[in-house]
Amino acid sequence: MIKAGIVGGTGYTGVELLRLLAPRDDVSIEVITSREMAGTPVSTVFPNLFGVLDIAFSEPDAEALSACDVVFYATPHAVAMKTAADLLARGVRIIDLSADFRLRDVATWEHWYNVPHECPELIHDAVYGLPERNRERIRDARLVAVPGCYPTAVELGYLPLLEKGLIQRDSLIADVKSAVSGAGRKAAVRTLFCEAAESMSAYGVDGHRHLPEIEQELNDISEEPVNLTFIPHLAPMVRGIHATLYSRPAESLDPDSLQALFEARFADEPFVDVLPSGVVPATRNVRASNQCQLAVTHLPASNIVLVLAVIDNLVRGASGQAVQNMNIMFGLDETAGLKQVPVLL
Amino acid sequence: MIKAGIVGGTGYTGVELLRLLAPRDDVSIEVITSREMAGTPVSTVFPNLFGVLDIAFSEPDAEALSACDVVFYATPHAVAMKTAADLLARGVRIIDLSADFRLRDVATWEHWYNVPHECPELIHDAVYGLPERNRERIRDARLVAVPGCYPTAVELGYLPLLEKGLIQRDSLIADVKSAVSGAGRKAAVRTLFCEAAESMSAYGVDGHRHLPEIEQELNDISEEPVNLTFIPHLAPMVRGIHATLYSRPAESLDPDSLQALFEARFADEPFVDVLPSGVVPATRNVRASNQCQLAVTHLPASNIVLVLAVIDNLVRGASGQAVQNMNIMFGLDETAGLKQVPVLL
Amino acid sequence: MIKAGIVGGTGYTGVELLRLLAPRDDVSIEVITSREMAGTPVSTVFPNLFGVLDIAFSEPDAEALSACDVVFYATPHAVAMKTAADLLARGVRIIDLSADFRLRDVATWEHWYNVPHECPELIHDAVYGLPERNRERIRDARLVAVPGCYPTAVELGYLPLLEKGLIQRDSLIADVKSAVSGAGRKAAVRTLFCEAAESMSAYGVDGHRHLPEIEQELNDISEEPVNLTFIPHLAPMVRGIHATLYSRPAESLDPDSLQALFEARFADEPFVDVLPSGVVPATRNVRASNQCQLAVTHLPASNIVLVLAVIDNLVRGASGQAVQNMNIMFGLDETAGLKQVPVLL
Amino acid sequence: MIKAGIVGGTGYTGVELLRLLAPRDDVSIEVITSREMAGTPVSTVFPNLFGVLDIAFSEPDAEALSACDVVFYATPHAVAMKTAADLLARGVRIIDLSADFRLRDVATWEHWYNVPHECPELIHDAVYGLPERNRERIRDARLVAVPGCYPTAVELGYLPLLEKGLIQRDSLIADVKSAVSGAGRKAAVRTLFCEAAESMSAYGVDGHRHLPEIEQELNDISEEPVNLTFIPHLAPMVRGIHATLYSRPAESLDPDSLQALFEARFADEPFVDVLPSGVVPATRNVRASNQCQLAVTHLPASNIVLVLAVIDNLVRGASGQAVQNMNIMFGLDETAGLKQVPVLL
Repeated sequence: MIKAGIVGGTGYTGVELLRLLAPRDDVSIEVITSREMAGTPVSTVFPNLFGVLDIAFSEPDAEALSACDVVFYATPHAVAMKTAADLLARGVRIIDLSADFRLRDVATWEHWYNVPHECPELIHDAVYGLPERNRERIRDARLVAVPGCYPTAVELGYLPLLEKGLIQRDSLIADVKSAVSGAGRKAAVRTLFCEAAESMSAYGVDGHRHLPEIEQELNDISEEPVNLTFIPHLAPMVRGIHATLYSRPAESLDPDSLQALFEARFADEPFVDVLPSGVVPATRNVRASNQCQLAVTHLPASNIVLVLAVIDNLVRGASGQAVQNMNIMFGLDETAGLKQVPVLL
Repeated sequence: MIKAGIVGGTGYTGVELLRLLAPRDDVSIEVITSREMAGTPVSTVFPNLFGVLDIAFSEPDAEALSACDVVFYATPHAVAMKTAADLLARGVRIIDLSADFRLRDVATWEHWYNVPHECPELIHDAVYGLPERNRERIRDARLVAVPGCYPTAVELGYLPLLEKGLIQRDSLIADVKSAVSGAGRKAAVRTLFCEAAESMSAYGVDGHRHLPEIEQELNDISEEPVNLTFIPHLAPMVRGIHATLYSRPAESLDPDSLQALFEARFADEPFVDVLPSGVVPATRNVRASNQCQLAVTHLPASNIVLVLAVIDNLVRGASGQAVQNMNIMFGLDETAGLKQVPVLL
Repeated sequence: MIKAGIVGGTGYTGVELLRLLAPRDDVSIEVITSREMAGTPVSTVFPNLFGVLDIAFSEPDAEALSACDVVFYATPHAVAMKTAADLLARGVRIIDLSADFRLRDVATWEHWYNVPHECPELIHDAVYGLPERNRERIRDARLVAVPGCYPTAVELGYLPLLEKGLIQRDSLIADVKSAVSGAGRKAAVRTLFCEAAESMSAYGVDGHRHLPEIEQELNDISEEPVNLTFIPHLAPMVRGIHATLYSRPAESLDPDSLQALFEARFADEPFVDVLPSGVVPATRNVRASNQCQLAVTHLPASNIVLVLAVIDNLVRGASGQAVQNMNIMFGLDETAGLKQVPVLL
Repeated sequence: MIKAGIVGGTGYTGVELLRLLAPRDDVSIEVITSREMAGTPVSTVFPNLFGVLDIAFSEPDAEALSACDVVFYATPHAVAMKTAADLLARGVRIIDLSADFRLRDVATWEHWYNVPHECPELIHDAVYGLPERNRERIRDARLVAVPGCYPTAVELGYLPLLEKGLIQRDSLIADVKSAVSGAGRKAAVRTLFCEAAESMSAYGVDGHRHLPEIEQELNDISEEPVNLTFIPHLAPMVRGIHATLYSRPAESLDPDSLQALFEARFADEPFVDVLPSGVVPATRNVRASNQCQLAVTHLPASNIVLVLAVIDNLVRGASGQAVQNMNIMFGLDETAGLKQVPVLL
């Protein structure tokens, strides 16, 4: 039985962790912290858990957390960096859903997150938790930085192309559409129902915090710097990310090989499905699941390689991928607790 | 291993049956029929099943179906009545999600469904599949008529009150709000996105097909005829039924006992949760799950007993309840394959 | 040219007032106040006004407001009561969209709004701005209390029945469904997109602030006390109220006369449409307009008089009705600036 | 008084034409045809028109239509081409909202629409009704082809850049998100509420009918062939198009001049608003209005010129632009009947 703790459990990644972990026989949720809600049953805040999980939020407490085998940080950025070192020192393994340990360059992190990093010495111990790239390193990791939602979709989509150097590295344009839940469960006018419903808009045009994360990873994959245009959009839906990924083929690319390339690359991946040629994905295909669906095609008239990638931002883009990492770290079946069929409608 | 067949699998109850049954180790989906889609992989019609279920729709075929232990009819009304007798004769047990065997009075059925009933002799063999009332009879049933979505919510809500005769039987008003998926997956203008989105309306004011079903069951429960006003509404959402159930207390009712009455009645029911006093349910609390959430209160100023009941119309109101019936019929744990945590958002 | 001021213009009733008033040739928006947004152009907060209205929010200022002919309070409750007397004394006419002057009984107001009323002496000067009842008094009013959104729908629906004493006054049940915009433009978790989308729930079951307002008015209409059960629900849509109004007929009611009764009562009303017999309304029918659509029928099986009423909560339930009151107060055509065709989809 | 007829009025562009034209004093809707609905009042099909427009659908009839000054075709493609010549010969001016006369190359039209063109001789008489380019020619046009919804957004966005040759003509990528109403009011599974809600997907990746139209116009604007990648997406909303337009700057472009370029180009255009630098548009900003909002910026890190364009697909992308064309053709104020303030929420 794996003893799990969750720090900061009142957000959307928190309720998703609970949804995924609560039914498991091999994981026990020992503690879930929230300063604001300490003492309140989790089922009061998340009434889908009524009758499912009989536990209350508690004040963050190092003792209680250090009795866990693994602690998930489901917090905003700049929280995990304050207490992760202490928990690691006590032998707890950490899975951080926030951005604190995703960027290897401290200065870049501090630029984008606008606070000093309080634990830079751990950054290089952290493993970037994209299993399709880093599965072996995740196995032994003490600290996993779970990829962001946009990065997960964009990186999986470009992965086969950049690994093989099949596209021009300076031609990448990622036009990505995200559900509103990406903004979290924080009271804010911008994400009120009446503000977000029935509307579509770009945002973060001048720079989004996920850009340096995506660039770091794409650079790693391609082993040379890429140049990426990344334009996120807010779509009027609760869950889902749809990444429309454009690039120009390198000379070495045989357009007819694209489908086979993608199928081969992900043949053994339990959570990536390459759709048959000619089929396009939709975010609902993967709703409430850890699956990523990909489609790839070459547009002959404009000589563009087009990849379409969809994920559920709260599952594959956050809590599901966190659990996938946990499964790997603890030597479990990687798919344990994660094979719910997507809720199509 | 239970061998299961599904007749008419291209609708919303079909995809939900597949979502619930496909991951199970103890059930094998042998055949799923659709005249129109015969030969097409189910994952083409329902792309959430890509990589989950590798089977194609087939022409309805009595031989193939009769090799099953159980056959689900996920068809419109007036289909099951044509072939159920034959399958039963071949030893197949039947779970009918349609209305064909719900009403015991043939004339009433023919009035509301406007076609002659082709198999009236089976009506009295059918067990009405509301486990909270008929669990023992379901166990041995050859033919189960799964309750409709509105009836499930309304009957569960009034059940404790009518069983004990605690409300005036002529005072029932059920104001019920349904998601659009209740109308099925049939091409129709009225349920187009642009027609149904962002709007609320009543319908069936002069009489809805679920009314005689609800009346039959409430009469049975109360052992005397009730008088019910039932006004269904279409709400702009994909899943969920919210029943707001009004009635006047009988003299015998102690209003302070209501909460305890409900809690006691459903204490052993795995799929009914009575919320704590003062807490109201929301349809999202039970999304994509088989759970029913109930709240009960007495309104002193107007002397009304108010019950609020929410279910997912596609799960508890159709496919989930069908699976629950199957579990009971085959001596399995009643909750097998049905304990997914609701998808709150 | 009528010089108009708006106090508290950053909410949804504010933007609706601007939408309705900005295009008019006979009204000039002189000032729109917001402490928080003072100095910010209104089109920054409400980008639909870009190129339409070139004005900035300003600090509340008695001098600027007193130069207006009319001031609208588009504020939460307990704001207008602080400054209305001063403006009235300076000769400004006031249209208050908040609840401050709706209830004639101060103690009741203080009970429901939980603060002392700071201007009780004005309550009895205020005219309740439901034109269908109080048109003549509105004409000369110095201070109009615009009805709440729920009250507008419920009162219009019961009006013809209670005026003539045709229903049992103790049998009223109003099951009402409201769009999320009724909760205003305040940052709050409960009305976030991801909380309110795709869900339906009752709320305020133990008592909603609009209940005493509705009771006061229905009592007035019927000239004897009514007993009303009022259950509001939150529906996943931006605009609209759907009131489903139940009552038992009095002995004097001829059910066959209901349609004619309603048609006659509202024959001269520009903003109430009685739908043909057998037609039910939908909230989208009146979206973004000041129209109320009503349907009435008698349900013979349960002997219930059923009225269905729909309005746009932000227009007829707030800003549109406020403008209608202004038109009456200033001797204009009552429909001036209010005959936009509803935006069906 | 302009006498107007509408052919094929039961779709979404039909109801929008009625919404815009019905309140006008200078336009009289003489006839609105629908074979299927002949004899039915328009307010039965479009209940927002109850009390607004007291007219019934009629069988298409050349006599009745030829008594009009102008006839709008609000039909699917391949209808107007059958009867337009006859009406023109009778002196009626025609505004075709369908695609029949948009493409100057008959073979291209027949390729994409997959039927023979029955009236190729009129194609070159038709004026493409984008007022920002063709205002003078529209004035005297007998036959106007109203631009498609996607083309309107994409062409307005690229217009200033291509007119001046400031971008590389082979670098255009238009990632465009459309509301569901773009698919029309035809019963179809794909656009059912439960299929389209809460999901995002690309479609028409291998080629969309609007592509040749956009290419024709962009080629015209730039006076040399462009190469365009056009990927349309279906977004879960009723109204709106959001075009995200990428291109590489030509050497001649001074990035700092972009904002001024756009502002100057559209300074006199009543229906195009260039947002201030740093502000991004949202589709809700222009809902139910004829406005187009544009933003332009240069992304220095990737050296991309980014244009964001939003319109309401049913108004500026169809019926509103049709009315704008009518205003121009009949010498009216171009904005007559079209200055409704957008319905932000």
